[in-house]
Amino acid sequence: MTNTQSTSFSAGASCGTSQIAGCRFSLHPMDDQFVSLLKGAMEKADTSKIWRSTDDVSTCVRGREIHIFDVVKAMVLHTAKTGAHVALNATFSIGCPGDTEGDAYMAEDDIRLNEPVVKDLSQYVSSQFALYPMGDPDYMKTIMDQVAVAEKHGTLKKGVHYASGLHGDIHDVFATLEEVFANAQQSKSSHIVMTVNMSINSPSHQEDK
Amino acid sequence: MTNTQSTSFSAGASCGTSQIAGCRFSLHPMDDQFVSLLKGAMEKADTSKIWRSTDDVSTCVRGREIHIFDVVKAMVLHTAKTGAHVALNATFSIGCPGDTEGDAYMAEDDIRLNEPVVKDLSQYVSSQFALYPMGDPDYMKTIMDQVAVAEKHGTLKKGVHYASGLHGDIHDVFATLEEVFANAQQSKSSHIVMTVNMSINSPSHQEDK
Repeated sequence: MTNTQSTSFSAGASCGTSQIAGCRFSLHPMDDQFVSLLKGAMEKADTSKIWRSTDDVSTCVRGREIHIFDVVKAMVLHTAKTGAHVALNATFSIGCPGDTEGDAYMAEDDIRLNEPVVKDLSQYVSSQFALYPMGDPDYMKTIMDQVAVAEKHGTLKKGVHYASGLHGDIHDVFATLEEVFANAQQSKSSHIVMTVNMSINSPSHQEDK
Repeated sequence: MTNTQSTSFSAGASCGTSQIAGCRFSLHPMDDQFVSLLKGAMEKADTSKIWRSTDDVSTCVRGREIHIFDVVKAMVLHTAKTGAHVALNATFSIGCPGDTEGDAYMAEDDIRLNEPVVKDLSQYVSSQFALYPMGDPDYMKTIMDQVAVAEKHGTLKKGVHYASGLHGDIHDVFATLEEVFANAQQSKSSHIVMTVNMSINSPSHQEDK
C-alpha cells in the first residue's frame, strides 16, 4: 500500500528517528482569478531548499522544519498581498514520514530563503490550529501546554470546538505555530501532526482586529 | 481555559462516553461571489437537527453523527451546484467534546433531512482524508484497516504523504468517509479525528475522472 501512514507503520522502528518535516496545504483565493493568483504566489516563493509536489487537491512540501514554515508563510503572504480573500488549510507533520522522499533536502543549512523578502510585509490573519500528538496517552497535556505557549505569544484568540483560535500579524501567528510544533516534539509522541486553517482579507474580520 | 481539547482533558473521565459528534469545516468557493454562494448553500441545507456556530474562520456543527454527515454533504453539494470551483476543509471529531454544547440534539431520530433533496445530484469530487485515533498506541493499524475499507468502496485513489486520496461521486466518497469514521471508533481510541480536504469543479480534475 502506498499510503504514507501505513508505510510508516511497516517501518515503525524508524518513527521519531527521522526528522524530515512536511506540510500538505492548499491556498484558496476566493476570486475568479484564483489560478493566476496561485501561480503567481508559487513562483514568488523560493522553494529550492524543499521537496515539493502538487496534485489536484493540495501541495506537499517536505524538508527541514525551518524551511517548511519559511516557504508556507511566504506563499500565504504572496497570495494575500493580491488583496484577495484567501484561506489556507495546512497539515504539518513530523515523525513518521513513511518513506525517504525528500531526505536529500535534510542537508540544507539554517538560512531562510524567503524571510528576508516577506519579513516587512504585515498582514492580519485569523486562524485556528489543532495539535495531534499521535500514540501518546498524555496527548491532552501536550496540547494544553502548547495552548499555554500560544497564550504567552499573545496570539491566542480563544478556544473553540476542536481547535484553538490564533490571530494577529501573520509573522506572530506563524512564530507561534512554529514554536508550538517544535515544543510538541518534546512530548512522549514521536509523531506530531498540526492542522492550521487561516483566513485572510475576510469581510468577517473587521470586528476582530 | 476555554480550549475544547483542554476542557476535554479536565473532564477526561467522560472521554469516549459522550457520543456527540461534530465537524468544523470551511467551504471556499474560488469565485468573486463567494459570499452569496456560501449564504445560498447554508440556507438550502436543513440544519434543524444539529447545533451550529459560525465564526470568521469556519463553521462548527455538532449532534448525531448521521446528521453531521448529512448536513455537511448537503452544504458541499449546494455550493458545488453553482458550478464554482469549491474546496471543502473539514475536521470530524468524536469522543472528547469537552463540553455538552449541543447535547440536546442527541435526542434526534435517524431520519436524514437533507438526503432526499441531494441524493439524485451527482458530482465528481477529488479529496484527501487522514484519520487521527488519539491516545491509541496501535493507531497506525486503525488507519491501515480503514484505508483498506476505502479500497473496498472503490473510492481510494492513492496514498499521498500525510493522507489518502479518495475520489469519485460525492455520495460514494461521503459514504466511505462516514463508514471509515464509524469503524475507527471500534478501535482502542476513544477520541477519533478525521480531516477531509475536497476539491470540486477544479480545472485540474479532468485527467483524474
